[in-house]
Formats: sequence, C-alpha cells, structure tokens
Amino acid sequence: MFESRFICICGLPGIGSVGKVAADYLATALECSPIKSFFSRSFPPQVMVSQGLAQLMHGELMRPKEKENMLILSGDAQPLDVVGMHELAGNILQAIKEQGVTDVITLAAYVGETEEKILGTATDLDSATALSECKIALLRGGAIGGLNGLLAGLAPLYDLRGYCLLATSSGADPVDIQAATNLLGAIKELLNLDIDVSIMQPAAEEPEEAAAEEVDMNYR
Amino acid sequence: MFESRFICICGLPGIGSVGKVAADYLATALECSPIKSFFSRSFPPQVMVSQGLAQLMHGELMRPKEKENMLILSGDAQPLDVVGMHELAGNILQAIKEQGVTDVITLAAYVGETEEKILGTATDLDSATALSECKIALLRGGAIGGLNGLLAGLAPLYDLRGYCLLATSSGADPVDIQAATNLLGAIKELLNLDIDVSIMQPAAEEPEEAAAEEVDMNYR
Amino acid sequence: MFESRFICICGLPGIGSVGKVAADYLATALECSPIKSFFSRSFPPQVMVSQGLAQLMHGELMRPKEKENMLILSGDAQPLDVVGMHELAGNILQAIKEQGVTDVITLAAYVGETEEKILGTATDLDSATALSECKIALLRGGAIGGLNGLLAGLAPLYDLRGYCLLATSSGADPVDIQAATNLLGAIKELLNLDIDVSIMQPAAEEPEEAAAEEVDMNYR
Amino acid sequence: MFESRFICICGLPGIGSVGKVAADYLATALECSPIKSFFSRSFPPQVMVSQGLAQLMHGELMRPKEKENMLILSGDAQPLDVVGMHELAGNILQAIKEQGVTDVITLAAYVGETEEKILGTATDLDSATALSECKIALLRGGAIGGLNGLLAGLAPLYDLRGYCLLATSSGADPVDIQAATNLLGAIKELLNLDIDVSIMQPAAEEPEEAAAEEVDMNYR
Repeated sequence: MFESRFICICGLPGIGSVGKVAADYLATALECSPIKSFFSRSFPPQVMVSQGLAQLMHGELMRPKEKENMLILSGDAQPLDVVGMHELAGNILQAIKEQGVTDVITLAAYVGETEEKILGTATDLDSATALSECKIALLRGGAIGGLNGLLAGLAPLYDLRGYCLLATSSGADPVDIQAATNLLGAIKELLNLDIDVSIMQPAAEEPEEAAAEEVDMNYR
Repeated sequence: MFESRFICICGLPGIGSVGKVAADYLATALECSPIKSFFSRSFPPQVMVSQGLAQLMHGELMRPKEKENMLILSGDAQPLDVVGMHELAGNILQAIKEQGVTDVITLAAYVGETEEKILGTATDLDSATALSECKIALLRGGAIGGLNGLLAGLAPLYDLRGYCLLATSSGADPVDIQAATNLLGAIKELLNLDIDVSIMQPAAEEPEEAAAEEVDMNYR
Repeated sequence: MFESRFICICGLPGIGSVGKVAADYLATALECSPIKSFFSRSFPPQVMVSQGLAQLMHGELMRPKEKENMLILSGDAQPLDVVGMHELAGNILQAIKEQGVTDVITLAAYVGETEEKILGTATDLDSATALSECKIALLRGGAIGGLNGLLAGLAPLYDLRGYCLLATSSGADPVDIQAATNLLGAIKELLNLDIDVSIMQPAAEEPEEAAAEEVDMNYR
Repeated sequence: MFESRFICICGLPGIGSVGKVAADYLATALECSPIKSFFSRSFPPQVMVSQGLAQLMHGELMRPKEKENMLILSGDAQPLDVVGMHELAGNILQAIKEQGVTDVITLAAYVGETEEKILGTATDLDSATALSECKIALLRGGAIGGLNGLLAGLAPLYDLRGYCLLATSSGADPVDIQAATNLLGAIKELLNLDIDVSIMQPAAEEPEEAAAEEVDMNYR
C-alpha cells in the first residue's frame, strides 16, 4: 500500500539518535541530494565548526536519486523551546506538502517493556491497520515527544497522514546502532526498498561534540 | 436568570482534574458533538498514543444534542507558558463569542479553609449577585490560576460575562470525583439541567499516562 | 521647569512597593479617573478575586480631576518575562505619547549605601541638570530593573524625556511607607503640587495576597 | 585579499570580554562615529545609569573616520533568550548588508588546549583558505556560542561571508586584555591596519557593574 504514496521519512535527533542515524543512512543509501534547509530561531544559538568550516545547525530535506515519491528529512538538532518546536514542525510539514508528500513517517526510540523490536502508530485508523498488516505491532499507549512526535501528530492539520515507527532501545547509549538498524529493516519492508541494512557502521565520533564546551559559549 | 443566556461551560485540567472531569461528564450526559478543536504552540510538544492511534493534545468545543444555548469546552492540557495561556484563552473566547455565547462559566478547584462545597466569583457585580441568589457563596479573595481563571478573567475583554465555580478539594487526589460531582450539582441547579449526577464514576486509568515517560521524549 | 511639561508619573510594583504605593496615593490625592487599561500576555496567568468579583491584573492610566498636564500610571503586576516587559513598556509609552505627554517620571526604590533619601537619573543631560537644580542628588551608577527602569530608558525612543526617582529603602519590608512618602515629597516639590503627604497610611492587607496559593493554580 | 572587501568587525560581550574589548579599542583607534543603534526586547529589562545619565543597553554600529570599507559593531549585552539572539543577529546582518558589507568577522574567545594564540573559522572553503594563507590556524572542531557565533553562522543567509577569530583565553578573567590584544594583532595583519595595539590598557572598572544589584531590580 505504502508504495503508491508519496512518503517523507523523518529522523531528528532523539534517544539513542536512532531516528537520525536511520534517516542519515537511508539518505546515503538512496544517494539523496539536499533540496531545502530548515532553520529555527530556537535552535541552539551557536555555529558548529568542523575542519575550519563554520555552519549553522539546520534540518535538511533530501531527495533520493532514483525515487520520485520519497523524501528524507534529517537534522542537527531540535529547537530548545516548545513554541520553536511547533513552528519548525509546521514549516517542515508545509514544505513537504508543497512537494506533493501524502504520508509522513517519523522514526524514534521506545524505551520500555515490550517483546517487539519495532512499534508503530498512525494518525488514522486505516493507516494504523495498514501498519498492522505489514506486521508492525501497534503502540498501545504513551506519548511521543519532540519533533519526531510532533511531525506525525501535526500531519493531519496539513492533510497528511502521520506515522511514527519506534525502535526498542535501552536508552542508555548515545547512539544505538542496533535500534537504528531495526528501524531501517522495518522501513525497507514497508516501502519495499532495495537497500542493504546489514552493513551499518557506528558513525565516527564527531569532533564537534567533544569540543563543544571549550569555545566561547555566551548564552543561556 | 442563567436559563436565558447562551452559556459556555469550560473545564480544563487543573487541581484534582475537577473542572475537566465535570465538563467531560456534562458533555457525555448532554450527548455533545465536537464543533471545533483548539491547538496551541505551547502545548506539550508531543503526540498522545492510544491503542495504536496518535493524536495531538487539544481543546475541544462541543455542542449538546438538544440544547441550543449551551456549549461545553474541555481539553487535554494547559499551555506550558504564560504567553501561550493568554493566546489560547483569547482564541477560545473569540470563537465562542462568534458562536453567540454571552456567559462563560469555568470550573476549578478550591483548596483552603471553608465550610462551603462550592464557591463562586463573577466579573461584574450583577452576575456575582446572581450567583448569590442561586445560593452559591462568593469567594472572598484569592487568585484563580491557569486557563480556568484566565477564561473567566479575560471574558469582559470580549464583551462576555465571566464566572468561575470552584469546588472545595483537598488537592491531594489526582482525580477528585466528589468535588467534580459537587460542581455538576451546582451547574445542574444553576442552569436547571435534567441530568443525573449521582452516577459519576472514576474514569478508567488511561494507559497513556502510565507509559508517558517510556517513549522518545526529546524536548525540554 | 517641570511645571510647563506634560508629565506622566509611573509607579509599578517593585522593591518595597514604593513606586506603586506613591503612584496610588497620588492618584487618590489628585482625584484621578481611569482613562486606559493595559494588559499583558506575560502578566501572571490568573484572575484576582476580591469580595466575589474577579478581575484581571492590569496597568491603569489615570487623569487628575483638575490638572491638564499630568497623568498617573499604576498597576497590579509586572510581566513575568523579558520580552513581555519590553512590549508592555512600549505600549504604555506609545499611549501616553498620544495623550501629549512629554516627560515620563518613574518611581522606584534604591537599596544601597547613600546619605540621600532620594536619588534621580534622567535620559539626557539637560534633564539630569534640572533634577540637580531641584536639589535631587544624581545616581552615580547602577542599573534600574523592571518596568520602572524600562519606561524611563525606552522613553527617548518615543521622543520623550525619561526620569527615574529612587527612594532609599532597606528592601526588607514588603511595603516601605516611609520611602514612598519621601518619593511623594520629592514629586510634590518638583511639580509644585498641592497635596498633603504627611497622612499616608499603610494600605490594608489585601485578602487576595494571603489566599493566593489556596485556589486552583494550574500553570508554571 | 581582505583589503578589497567591505568588512564589518563585530565584538559582543563574551568570555573574558575579549571580542568586545578588541572591537571597542578598534573603534577608538579608528576614530569611529556611531551610525546605528540596535535594541532587543530580550536585552536585560533594565536601564544603565552612569553619572546621573540613564541609558538603555544597546548594540552600536560605527564607521571609522577615514576608512570607507569598514564598520565596527560593539554592544553592551547579549539577548537573554535564544529567539532574541537570532532576531538581533538577523537585524544586525540585514543592516550591515544594506550598508554594503560583504564580509563579517566576529571576535571571540577560545578556552581549550592549543598552541595557537589565534584560531579562525569561516563559512566557506575559499574564505577558510584565505585565513590559512594569512597564517591563521583553522579551528578543527567545536561550537561557537552566542552572538559572536551566530553573526558568523547566519551571514551566508544574508549573502555575506562569515568568519570568527578566536583568541585563546584561560576563561578565568572577567577581562582578558592579553587575548584581546592578540585579536587586535591578528586583525591588524589581516586588514593591514595602521594601528598601535601595544598600548592597550585595561578598561576602568565601570561603576554600573559594581552597583548593579543595589537598585530596584523587579524582574525575573
């Protein structure tokens, strides 16, 4: 069913970075090119430096080289305040709506007691049923916070269908590669993608993170 | 007197959930249908999940099946910041004004020393006197916080009369059914409603609440 | 010199309530009538109740019965956040500018080492000199915070002259009547007012304050 | 290369005040005149008093007496919140863009392990290379926070080139004159300026700072 839809897959930083890691891997595997950057006045007020180059934190909407009906959204950060989160989520949904997207699938982590590796939820009954039919267990209850929750939850206000796929994670690791790999496996099945998810490697430690507190940080 | 007015009864979450529980019961008893949803950029940035379905937190304006001059407003949450509270209260008052409402009655809890089960206050002298004539003791002093206070207080700026009815509560229970029942009894008398308030039952524990911290909560 | 100007005297709540108490006394002594109310989305999100009547917190601009070239501004509260303070100060200055005001004098407290009972500051050299010539010692340095500081500081952006008169206070009393009386004495001299400042009495304890925590306070 | 560009040098308060001190010295040495003031609703809500004169905190854009293609930006404070920082940075970049500026160089401190006295970063590869060719070591990684980071990072959104020069500092001193002197030396080389940086003296203690807590501070 999902193959006939125009889908945007979103993975922003969150617990275990599972959504972001999965989205970034997908973007590489599908040879995506950036088509639009998103900034927020509520992103951390800083510039990131890597090998002498300074760049603002941002979200990036990307298009696969050979798939017409798919977009990928990844990003460096989540807004620091509640209003900024709603604004950014609205800006992103507006933009992908204009690109023709019909279904938004966000990727996040689930920390809790369950036998399932992947849990899902959708904003309408038909879509939740479609997840079930694809062998994805439905999340019984809870709250999904941050942009990965808001992008799915706000989707119907933009006449989009929203979904969130959650990978079980201990929540203890800064980067949970196994949970991200499970998400990729589920996405591959769901969308019938021709990608190899077995070769995922932990991302190299980014030097920015390590040095983040050493430079002139003059804000609260 | 109140029977000739177009009244909106508002119960948002607060101490002991008394206002929300009473408004929700009233909406069920009067067989209300939703007519307008309210969202806020200051609501908690998350999506609530129940039985696989994901839904944004929102306020809901409802109309009784067989009463022309009454609306009920309930909601899932209060905005997290002060500006968001004022904005949402203004949006709600603007909307109910356009529906023809003339009087706004909010429901809340009172935690303090008093012999009364119900205390009332109004935004003009005539309305306060009308409460007294209906055997509702007037609140001598204090401050009523959050949306239940603001919706009454801001009402005159929208040419509406504002009232707040407060049920005495210990403030210790997450859900104070007895206080909510007292509020319903007062509303029943005040508006001469044909409802049975003796059968109120505690709401079933919602699974969302219990699991709320287990999923990807990536915001501050 | 000040007699030829159109002056607005502002006293918002602050240390020892000295500015507000002085402004309120002045408003009563000069038999002022309210001409405009100011609200802020950043005021505490609550409604105040007194003797059964509910009223929003607000600022009030008042006009003396028999003086053409004077306005008084008092208020219940200061905005809770920085942006709200700037917005409200701007709204007030815009409104008094439209009334014809040329000079804004705010009243506040000074807690520190000094022999002076009253210290003053102004936004331009001529005005500071004028204060000196009226025997008001100039404040050597420091920062005056909140609306009483901002209203004076922002005044030049609205083509108004700004002044702040500060009464020395220990800062220990919730209401410092003596400091407020000193401010009134200075204002009386400065503007050649015919008022009796010797009869100032402590305001009755307001019941709202005492009960403020007992009612439904559902915000953060 | 930099001599052919229209450059704005920005130094706002930060660690060791190195950026602000260097910018202020440069403004004096080049006999700058103020051409535009910047205010922010997120600046501390207070008025600063010095020798009886009250003045709002602000940023100041200045033009050297005898250089056509250079501007200096200094300021009293940074906005207190994240959105305010982005707004002010955007306002400044918009204004200098309209003045004809092509390159923005911000000055800040670096607290960390390095042999270099000065480190640099730029928002594009050619500009980073140009820094290297001028013997300025490139910052390998990290994040530069506050206005000095944002002004450089946001520059490309305004079609400007952004740079940040960081002087190594222990971070322990409120004012690190040596680090500021090092920044001035680097700027002098980079822009081939005819100034004497050897005579920098610690700024006199400003009485405002010392007394800042003694006056009516009624905000949070």
